[in-house]
Amino acid sequence: MAARMDGIDVLVSEVGPRDGLQSIAPVMPTAAKKAWIAALVAAGVREIEVGSFVPPRLLPQLADTGEIVAFCRAAHPGLHVAVLVPNARGAEDAIAAGAHKITLPLSASETHSLKNLRRTHEQVLAEVARIAAMLAALPAGSRPEFEGAISTAFGCTLEGRVPEAKVVALAERLVGLGCDEVGLSDTTGYANPAQVKRLVKAVHAAIGPERMTGLHLHNTRGLGLANVLAGLEVGITTFDSSQGGLGGCPFAPGASGNIVTEDLVFMLEAMGLRTGIDPDRLLAARAILAEALPGEPLYGFVPDAGLPLGFARAA
Amino acid sequence: MAARMDGIDVLVSEVGPRDGLQSIAPVMPTAAKKAWIAALVAAGVREIEVGSFVPPRLLPQLADTGEIVAFCRAAHPGLHVAVLVPNARGAEDAIAAGAHKITLPLSASETHSLKNLRRTHEQVLAEVARIAAMLAALPAGSRPEFEGAISTAFGCTLEGRVPEAKVVALAERLVGLGCDEVGLSDTTGYANPAQVKRLVKAVHAAIGPERMTGLHLHNTRGLGLANVLAGLEVGITTFDSSQGGLGGCPFAPGASGNIVTEDLVFMLEAMGLRTGIDPDRLLAARAILAEALPGEPLYGFVPDAGLPLGFARAA
Repeated sequence: MAARMDGIDVLVSEVGPRDGLQSIAPVMPTAAKKAWIAALVAAGVREIEVGSFVPPRLLPQLADTGEIVAFCRAAHPGLHVAVLVPNARGAEDAIAAGAHKITLPLSASETHSLKNLRRTHEQVLAEVARIAAMLAALPAGSRPEFEGAISTAFGCTLEGRVPEAKVVALAERLVGLGCDEVGLSDTTGYANPAQVKRLVKAVHAAIGPERMTGLHLHNTRGLGLANVLAGLEVGITTFDSSQGGLGGCPFAPGASGNIVTEDLVFMLEAMGLRTGIDPDRLLAARAILAEALPGEPLYGFVPDAGLPLGFARAA
Repeated sequence: MAARMDGIDVLVSEVGPRDGLQSIAPVMPTAAKKAWIAALVAAGVREIEVGSFVPPRLLPQLADTGEIVAFCRAAHPGLHVAVLVPNARGAEDAIAAGAHKITLPLSASETHSLKNLRRTHEQVLAEVARIAAMLAALPAGSRPEFEGAISTAFGCTLEGRVPEAKVVALAERLVGLGCDEVGLSDTTGYANPAQVKRLVKAVHAAIGPERMTGLHLHNTRGLGLANVLAGLEVGITTFDSSQGGLGGCPFAPGASGNIVTEDLVFMLEAMGLRTGIDPDRLLAARAILAEALPGEPLYGFVPDAGLPLGFARAA
């Protein structure tokens, strides 16, 4: 099942409950997560990455992912429930829990892959093949979507420049091994708009635009929304973002890692692109997040500045 | 005399010494201003708005504008020295001081014009005519450029939406009365990329693209650099920005008003667009600014995050 695109132009995929919460020290109580997710859904958010199936000793913040997926499936039938998995073992849990979408990250920089996941490209690709086989064995109607997310696609803090040909080749491998789609992640905040257009076009040419519809962008160097605009102009229709800019390795105060959902939704709606998300209700969800994480810095310009006088959402 | 465009693709026009310094309480000593400007020039900045010819009792921060213009003319012969003037009286001072460029603001929102300048559109346009006559009387080689800058061009905190037809009509009036060029300013941080493209195209169609090459954008709602990208795509080649994001009415911590020179230069150079500005030397200028304004918040993502590993400037 794909996320619902009826009546919207762009899918804003909220990753705060996974990418945000895994990046901070406090563990958000399960009840607070449920309340936050419910508020996001009430604001019109259609896809949320709600957690990650990793060993709880590694990420205690996400130990309740199974329960959260079950809650989302039961309480929010319209929501597209996405989870991250590091390997086939995690995918098994994700399938059992009932996730609609499974994302497995693969770092374009092998140095980064070895350092973060302790795996070579071939080892990660072997997991991809295992997951694809697992999914192929499921009845057609119950198969979750399977995305291979290429991280450090725009550069790496360890390797520096990442050749575009390498990213394209990995995208081809992922699709060849059975991924339904490929995503590109600017893990390090290195991307610039010209590069975004170039790389998206190259990947589209290799695997087809319908196989690569999403970008995961960071705002580390302030270029996040400019990169979104670049993506829009080459046919990208899904953007990951995080409420309050939570997560994505912030470097410094004011410098969020992930692009901020509130600012992204404002930009898109102001441009006349329908997201299905109500900016005011999004602020209500932010208040719930803020209350659940006292003292944790939240980012974003629109929450401080407010909407323009006479602002009207996309028709 | 126009700013030098040899060897560059985009002119980054630094407005910190005017827009930045007029927005903060402390008065920067003249010697510190000179040191800051010298460091900006050393970094490769080719145009600086160095001050404003307004009565010193209104803006004591800019009371030394005459001296600063004279210093720039003597010490930095390659620098294009720009100043703001509110009226013909200020333009007289600017001409006497030897400014290369005179900018007169006209607010598209008449409510804003009345509240801030206590003048109707017609009263401001009468000043434009007076300045044009004054300039026409000068020998051809010694005439400064004359820009009419339309503020609140993308919306107004008092009037809300500003009709695009009104902005186009004012642009035509300004050129008709003798302005060499017209600039558009997003004074309120209301602009979005779709609107930037639409309005720039409309103004270009009315007065010719060669008469409207510059945008003054704010980052109030985080869209500043996305709006720059939009401007680039419709032929804009000059962008105002402020070192450290100083000025432009910041709303809140992290929310600079003006777009930040450091981030703008990074984006352009990363995209392969030559600015002539060295990002590292720009940080040296920022250090001088920070030292001269202890306790004053400076903004920007790149100064915190640093340049990407292996970053190379536009060739």
